[in-house]
Amino acid sequence: MAEAVERTPAEWQAYLERAPFHRWLGLRFAAVEPGRVEIVCPFREELVSDPDVPYLHGGLIATLLDVAGDYAVATRIGRGVPTVDMRVDYLRAAGKEDLRVVGTVAKLGRSLSVADAECRGADGKTIALGRILYSTR
Amino acid sequence: MAEAVERTPAEWQAYLERAPFHRWLGLRFAAVEPGRVEIVCPFREELVSDPDVPYLHGGLIATLLDVAGDYAVATRIGRGVPTVDMRVDYLRAAGKEDLRVVGTVAKLGRSLSVADAECRGADGKTIALGRILYSTR
Amino acid sequence: MAEAVERTPAEWQAYLERAPFHRWLGLRFAAVEPGRVEIVCPFREELVSDPDVPYLHGGLIATLLDVAGDYAVATRIGRGVPTVDMRVDYLRAAGKEDLRVVGTVAKLGRSLSVADAECRGADGKTIALGRILYSTR
Amino acid sequence: MAEAVERTPAEWQAYLERAPFHRWLGLRFAAVEPGRVEIVCPFREELVSDPDVPYLHGGLIATLLDVAGDYAVATRIGRGVPTVDMRVDYLRAAGKEDLRVVGTVAKLGRSLSVADAECRGADGKTIALGRILYSTR
Repeated sequence: MAEAVERTPAEWQAYLERAPFHRWLGLRFAAVEPGRVEIVCPFREELVSDPDVPYLHGGLIATLLDVAGDYAVATRIGRGVPTVDMRVDYLRAAGKEDLRVVGTVAKLGRSLSVADAECRGADGKTIALGRILYSTR
Repeated sequence: MAEAVERTPAEWQAYLERAPFHRWLGLRFAAVEPGRVEIVCPFREELVSDPDVPYLHGGLIATLLDVAGDYAVATRIGRGVPTVDMRVDYLRAAGKEDLRVVGTVAKLGRSLSVADAECRGADGKTIALGRILYSTR
Repeated sequence: MAEAVERTPAEWQAYLERAPFHRWLGLRFAAVEPGRVEIVCPFREELVSDPDVPYLHGGLIATLLDVAGDYAVATRIGRGVPTVDMRVDYLRAAGKEDLRVVGTVAKLGRSLSVADAECRGADGKTIALGRILYSTR
Repeated sequence: MAEAVERTPAEWQAYLERAPFHRWLGLRFAAVEPGRVEIVCPFREELVSDPDVPYLHGGLIATLLDVAGDYAVATRIGRGVPTVDMRVDYLRAAGKEDLRVVGTVAKLGRSLSVADAECRGADGKTIALGRILYSTR
């Protein structure tokens, strides 16, 4: 297995923000450790799907799961990796709230790696689960 | 199977735009027919993931697949439906380009329905495939 | 959430063996508790996929993951449930060995439930992961 | 893309039967062409899951989808390939009947390839869909 990568929290945050989409979403690391990251996504009105209920867009949640898994792998190999495929399970709807997503490495391989991700609402309850395959060649 | 739902193209577009996220993305229907929709997502800079390559964010592509599958089902039952789970296969990276996503109904059931979705780049090549389960109770 | 179901170990084993396919495979419970089961599948020659390497068939492993998730849900609601969809991640090949599969309930819902399953080889290493959706209406 | 592989139908059948599990299942090719295979699985009592309904085991169906996708890829690259991950959607139960599974190549890549598979009952109706990722390095 690869060694954990040395970066300061500020360096990880800067790396996350290289992506214009992450900047627009306002993503920020709440924790970074070898093989595990925690990312917060603050609520913004543009992310709403159904304005009547209201609830946040499932595409946003898929995005967060993918990002968390990706950076969990990045803590082990030093760089973001292309996503090969992803499964998302939506367990409950997200309201107008900040979301927190945790990514962990399930298997670090030479050419392919698997991460798990969990998205939680403001009350800590699980909103969605992700299992994601990344290319790590 | 449910009958196809009668709405004019303008009514479908208005229905799509009820979601603030769809408005922000600038999504528009290129085609709506019973059990099949085609949606265009115009390029915008905030959607970029890696600014060096550059390529569009995988979370955007997952979002588009989910939306296309959802509205394909909506053409049969008259309303958007909650996503239960989703698989996304990323086949090639998307550059700074408009994307087109096609959603079709694979199975319309009383409580659960399956849709397929395909995201294509400006050259018509497949960028990603989605298979998505919706709750249609 | 449903209460745990009262059955003796022998009753669970008899319930598992109602399925001719489980009997042919020789599946037996190593543990049954509320929301979690552990099942052993003894090696038999017919389960081999590639006789040269040799390794066990991936279809067998998918079967075991599905069974473990199903009975994990059964410990909560009292009966086996239809599988709606499933994701399997194969992490390493299985040799000519007994397999052990653990199923746990990730979300118990009124109409749909999610289980996780993990298949391990004789050395305890993870061979495959499953995430499975069941209909629990 | 790889060229189609030259083998006679009898050679493909012999290649399929190298796997003890395929022999036990009695799998036989109904069609083999570049990028597409059709395989028949005759009914046998050991494959039943619920003897009361009765219906065939979901693990069998997952197995068939995986095999069909694998051999569809094999028609393009000349050999069976390891499965990386798989999604199965179960659309309806299979009774005591012969099953037919069709596998097609969705994307042939240098290191990873995607196949689609569809399992049909004796009446030709779709029983399950598979989307499967294979390692083709």
